[in-house]
Amino acid sequence: MSQEKNLTYKQAGVDIEQGEAAVEKISSFVKSTFNKTVINTFGGYAGIIQPSENYPLYLAVTTDGVGTKCEIARLTGIYDTIGFDLIAMLVDDLICVGAQPLAVVDYLAVGKLDPSKVVEIIKGITNACKVINAPLIGGEMAEHNNMHQESFDLSGTAIGILSIDSILGAHRVRKGDLLMGLKSPNLRSNGFSLARLILLETHNLDLDKIPWPGETRTLGEILLEPSVIYTPFLLKVINQLSSNLHALAHITGGGLEKNLKRVLPPDLYAEINYTSWEVPNIFLKIQQLGNVKTSEMYQTFNMGIGMVLIIDPASKDEVIQLASSNSLEITPIGKIAQKP
Amino acid sequence: MSQEKNLTYKQAGVDIEQGEAAVEKISSFVKSTFNKTVINTFGGYAGIIQPSENYPLYLAVTTDGVGTKCEIARLTGIYDTIGFDLIAMLVDDLICVGAQPLAVVDYLAVGKLDPSKVVEIIKGITNACKVINAPLIGGEMAEHNNMHQESFDLSGTAIGILSIDSILGAHRVRKGDLLMGLKSPNLRSNGFSLARLILLETHNLDLDKIPWPGETRTLGEILLEPSVIYTPFLLKVINQLSSNLHALAHITGGGLEKNLKRVLPPDLYAEINYTSWEVPNIFLKIQQLGNVKTSEMYQTFNMGIGMVLIIDPASKDEVIQLASSNSLEITPIGKIAQKP
Repeated sequence: MSQEKNLTYKQAGVDIEQGEAAVEKISSFVKSTFNKTVINTFGGYAGIIQPSENYPLYLAVTTDGVGTKCEIARLTGIYDTIGFDLIAMLVDDLICVGAQPLAVVDYLAVGKLDPSKVVEIIKGITNACKVINAPLIGGEMAEHNNMHQESFDLSGTAIGILSIDSILGAHRVRKGDLLMGLKSPNLRSNGFSLARLILLETHNLDLDKIPWPGETRTLGEILLEPSVIYTPFLLKVINQLSSNLHALAHITGGGLEKNLKRVLPPDLYAEINYTSWEVPNIFLKIQQLGNVKTSEMYQTFNMGIGMVLIIDPASKDEVIQLASSNSLEITPIGKIAQKP
Repeated sequence: MSQEKNLTYKQAGVDIEQGEAAVEKISSFVKSTFNKTVINTFGGYAGIIQPSENYPLYLAVTTDGVGTKCEIARLTGIYDTIGFDLIAMLVDDLICVGAQPLAVVDYLAVGKLDPSKVVEIIKGITNACKVINAPLIGGEMAEHNNMHQESFDLSGTAIGILSIDSILGAHRVRKGDLLMGLKSPNLRSNGFSLARLILLETHNLDLDKIPWPGETRTLGEILLEPSVIYTPFLLKVINQLSSNLHALAHITGGGLEKNLKRVLPPDLYAEINYTSWEVPNIFLKIQQLGNVKTSEMYQTFNMGIGMVLIIDPASKDEVIQLASSNSLEITPIGKIAQKP
C-alpha cells in the first residue's frame, strides 16, 4: 500500500458509518423490548434499569470488547495485560452514567484453546478487578473452529449501581461548564485496526524492536501498554464534587467530538481547545507514517485525552488537586457553549 | 474422514477437558477478586452478588454464547433466529439459580459488518426478549478484520434478580427427589461443532435439502430451529411449587450428567433412566452418520432433555399439569440417590 495515500479507519476494515447505520435500524427493535424498568439506554454509555420499585437504586449495565488490541497481544505473546484493558473499557463506560462497578463477567472466544494463554488473559482481568474492587463473577470460553487457531477475541460486561438521583449526563450539563481532560498516554483499546495497518502492514515495523529514535521501548510494549482505569479516581470526584460534576465522557471509538456529543443536550456543544494538551508521540507517529488526516486521527483515537469531565467551573481547582493527589494528569481542554 | 472412525467432540475442535483444565487454573485468580458482595459463583449457572446490604435482594449474572450454531445461520442465510437461541442460553442458565431475568446485553463480533444481517440478528434477540419480558439495554458490535469476513460470533450477558431466600441448587436437593425432564426437540445451541463435522464435512449433506427419508424439513431448518426458552414456564413453577422445587439443571455443554452434577451435593447422584424418553431423530441421525459412541453423544448433546427440574416427589403431578397447560412436555427421567 502506498504511503502517499491518506489511510483511514475504514480502509483498516472498520466502518463506523456502516456501524451507525446498523444501530439506527435496530433501534426500533431494541426499544420494543423496553418495559417500565428501563430508565435510560440508547446512546448512553450504559443501560440503566430500576430492578425493583421497592428500592431507590438503579443498575447500570455495559458491554464492550478490546477490539483488535488482541492481535498485539497475540503477536507479542504477552497475554497478561489485555484483560486490564477490557476492565478499563467496561468500568470507564459505566462510570460515565455515575455507576460504581458491582461485578464483571468476561467472554473469551478462541480459535484453539491454550490453557496457559487463557490463564494469562484472566490474570489481566483479575488484576484490574482488584483495582476497581469488583469481583469477576462469571465468564465463558468458547472454542470456535471457524476462527484462526491463534486468534482470540475478548469482551465482557460490567454491572454497576447508582442511586436514583445521581445519574450523570446531558440533563446536568450547562452553558459555561468546563471540560477537564484526563490524560491517556496511549491508544487505550481503540483504533488498533488502523494502527496495525499503518505500523505493521504498511511499514512492516517490528513489534520486538524500538521503532523510532528517541524511544526506549519496543513497539510491542508501546502498543500493548494497558489503558489507565479512571474509575477509582472518578468515584472520588463523584463523591467530592457531588452535583458540581455534570457529565463524564469516556473517549473511545469516534474520538473526542462524538463521545462528548453523547453526554450533551442538543442545544449545546463542546468548544475544544485542541492545543491545550500535548498529543503523545505514538499518535503523531501513526499520523505521520500513515499520512492520516488530522480529522481522521481525532475521530479514530483518543489523541491523549482518555476521559473528559464536564464540571461547574467553580470546581476546577478542586478537581486538579484531587487528580494530582491520585497521580493523574488533568487539564482544562475547553468549555460548553451555546449553539448559534 | 472415514465413517468407520468414532467421531468425538474433541475431533470437532472442542476440547472440554482442556477447557476444564483452564477453568481449574484460573479459579484461584478469579477467587482473589471476590469481596463481601459475592454470594456464590464458581461452578454454578450464574454468579450471585448482593448489591447493597440495605436491600434483601440478590443479583444473578450469567454470560454465554451460541457457539458455532452461528455457522448454520451463516450457511443458510437465515439470521433472524440465532438471537433467540442466545437469550434461551442466557435466561435458562439464570433461572437455574432461581433468578428472574431483569435485562440482557449482547456482543456481536463480525468479520465484516453487514447492517442488514445485523438487523436480523438483533431481531431474533428482541423477539426472545419479549417472550421473557426483559429489555435489551445494551450491546456492542465489533468488526474484526482478522476474522473471516462472513463469520460472526454472538454472545451476551443476562442480569437477573432473586430474593435472598430463594436460591435454587445443591443445598436444597435431597435423596429421593424426582428428576423431571423438559423435552428439547433440537440441539438447542450445543454440540454444533460435532454436528457440523459429521453432517456437513464428513457426509457433505446439503443444508437446503431434506436430509433423510421421513423428514419434511431441510437440514438447515432442522439444525437452526430455535431453542425452547423454558424460563417463563419455570418462573411459574418457582411461584407455584415454592420450596418443593429444589434445583434446575440447564442441559448445555457436557450433557445431562455433568450439568446435573453442578446442582447436586457431593454425597448424592442422579440415577437417570435413559429409556424414559424418546431421543429426537436428529440426535440418532448424528450418532449413526458419525458412528459416535453413545457416551460421547450424551456428553455432547442434550439428547432431547433441555432442562431438568429436581423436585419433591409430592409435586410430580402438579408439575406435569403445569407443563401441559403451558404446552411443554415434561417427563420423569430418574431420581436422586445416595452414593454408595
